[in-house]
Amino acid sequence: MSKVRVCSFSMSLDGYVAGPDQSLEHPLGVGGEQLHNWAFATRTFHQVHGMGGLDDGETGLDDEFIARSSQGVGAHILGRNMFGPVRGAWGDEAWNGWWGDNPPYHHPVFVLTHHPRDPLEMAGGTTFHFVTDGLESALEQARDAAGGQDVVIGGGAATVRAYLQADLVDEMHLAVAPVLLGSGERLFDGAVRLERFEFEPIRSSSAAAHFVLRRDR
Amino acid sequence: MSKVRVCSFSMSLDGYVAGPDQSLEHPLGVGGEQLHNWAFATRTFHQVHGMGGLDDGETGLDDEFIARSSQGVGAHILGRNMFGPVRGAWGDEAWNGWWGDNPPYHHPVFVLTHHPRDPLEMAGGTTFHFVTDGLESALEQARDAAGGQDVVIGGGAATVRAYLQADLVDEMHLAVAPVLLGSGERLFDGAVRLERFEFEPIRSSSAAAHFVLRRDR
Repeated sequence: MSKVRVCSFSMSLDGYVAGPDQSLEHPLGVGGEQLHNWAFATRTFHQVHGMGGLDDGETGLDDEFIARSSQGVGAHILGRNMFGPVRGAWGDEAWNGWWGDNPPYHHPVFVLTHHPRDPLEMAGGTTFHFVTDGLESALEQARDAAGGQDVVIGGGAATVRAYLQADLVDEMHLAVAPVLLGSGERLFDGAVRLERFEFEPIRSSSAAAHFVLRRDR
Repeated sequence: MSKVRVCSFSMSLDGYVAGPDQSLEHPLGVGGEQLHNWAFATRTFHQVHGMGGLDDGETGLDDEFIARSSQGVGAHILGRNMFGPVRGAWGDEAWNGWWGDNPPYHHPVFVLTHHPRDPLEMAGGTTFHFVTDGLESALEQARDAAGGQDVVIGGGAATVRAYLQADLVDEMHLAVAPVLLGSGERLFDGAVRLERFEFEPIRSSSAAAHFVLRRDR
């Protein structure tokens, strides 16, 4: 059966998954980019984002985790802030995501919002669908669209937390980075049924400690 | 020069260094013991606490970190809650720590308290000194007593945080355990001059991800 996964979600040692003061200039909050240095360095990241030649970027454990993040995935769900900084109604609908014309998803992406908008078809197989009737509906639509493959909850923190609180996440991979942010947005903040999860043995590179949690069915 | 260190301080993946509802029965808070499973399993822990034979307990990375926690250490500083559950004046002074007659320190230990008490000499070289004039005085006394060796801030969280806020910690080793506590006491909660620290490369066993931070002098 297809699973609901959280993949390669980066957290600082002091528990923040985004820095403070998120904005158009700082979509990950001030200092938040550092959380992802381990990911940026990988070969898979370089390839997915068309950076450098085929041999650029590091292989190894971190790369395995980044590669695994997109393997067997048929759809994504994103919170609205993860899609963009626009608030309220969509207006002229000029905003088409942070990722340019060819986003790195290459499959249907369901964006949680209170404001209806027509689907937005991008290059490379990514179509953004805007879901106004809640996280369970978004999951149902994503499952249908994924055709038996897994659905990834892509973030941000509030969206992952909402799916955790609804007990709808089967597997979660968190990467703890050697960074202290001091403030920002916490993933674990509020009631989550944490006792539902079992840990795989920890594995780490020098740049990230990888924790994989599975829901005990 | 002798350093001020925090050693083998265990934290859950959700950022707690003690569970909720600390009490005489649950000195580490409910569920808090799990944070230390990686340490309990080591050979050094077994030896220090006289558990089993010389070959019991695991060697390897976790054991190296536990062994390193006491190497070159000449004194400890503890918060009062780390010393015991007694609140207010010491009364009949019957409480002599959580550790029995032969505590595992084997050197002077300085306990921060608002209530004066005569030094308490235990078996095995541990003497508890009760310091009523603040954390800087405790550190000065501990440095003198350590005779050129390092001083360890042993906890609890509030005490470590206070020394961090006073910018008096040179080196900190945190071990992130594969545990979610859901609530409890956070280490990183409030203003700490985190930018003062640089990270060593992460190392991990299956049971703990070790982060070592050094103050950039």
